[in-house]
Amino acid sequence: MPSVQTFKATAHLQEGVKVVTTVRQFELVIDEPKSLGGTDTGMNPVEALLASLGACQSIVARVYAPKFDVILEDFRVEVEGDLDLDGFFNRSDVRPGYSDIRYTFYIKTPSSAEKVEQFVEFLESKCPVGDTIAAPVHLKLNRIVIENEVTNS
Amino acid sequence: MPSVQTFKATAHLQEGVKVVTTVRQFELVIDEPKSLGGTDTGMNPVEALLASLGACQSIVARVYAPKFDVILEDFRVEVEGDLDLDGFFNRSDVRPGYSDIRYTFYIKTPSSAEKVEQFVEFLESKCPVGDTIAAPVHLKLNRIVIENEVTNS
Repeated sequence: MPSVQTFKATAHLQEGVKVVTTVRQFELVIDEPKSLGGTDTGMNPVEALLASLGACQSIVARVYAPKFDVILEDFRVEVEGDLDLDGFFNRSDVRPGYSDIRYTFYIKTPSSAEKVEQFVEFLESKCPVGDTIAAPVHLKLNRIVIENEVTNS
Repeated sequence: MPSVQTFKATAHLQEGVKVVTTVRQFELVIDEPKSLGGTDTGMNPVEALLASLGACQSIVARVYAPKFDVILEDFRVEVEGDLDLDGFFNRSDVRPGYSDIRYTFYIKTPSSAEKVEQFVEFLESKCPVGDTIAAPVHLKLNRIVIENEVTNS
């Protein structure tokens, strides 16, 4: 298996701001709460992003705990992020995305605090979603496919 | 409503690399395919990240189409990203996250290509998830809560 892999997802806009996303055989409904103009049938995109971060940290924890001799009886992450909605709503020039994201690890373990700290430091450095968020990524529009015949409206 | 909002998510590690994520009343199961050591019961974290990007772009499209006088009869995004697994698996010093993420917009519309292009350029600049991925974010460990009594193991 080559070490560079390409992952894919599709998003399909429904009524209002509801979106059906698809990855292989899996589906996730994304929507907005009523306060943000949606019908509240699913988490919203910026919440799903935080969920993917917590999940990624959890998986890295599972994979690397043995290397640090840390026993995980239970592992839970709480993630939160601050986002200035004035960006999205074009009310100011503030960035539309998260400025800050914080997380707390809840670990049930008989292992020493020192071991756990070393383990956590390592897992933070190897988390694919964490790195994708913390450091810049080349984000690029491939193309726009207009599916109807183009007429000047 | 203050313009800075704090969004939250929780991730709870299950057997193996399966993770149950929770946002408000919503749940999303994250797992890895068998090729990456999981039991394939859900999309994986880096796929969920791409799904959240496509969903976010779709929602921004819905919200801003009227401003650009673009009619959306159908709107779909295909997203893909390249990730070098040697980073996560600690086989090299390459970054563990995505280096490149690309997307294609499929738009069914009677509106002109010119209008659509202006609209797409604007939506890219206002997408919260896109901005979170493209530009650096302050990512920070709040704290580690060790839930058992700490003993030196």
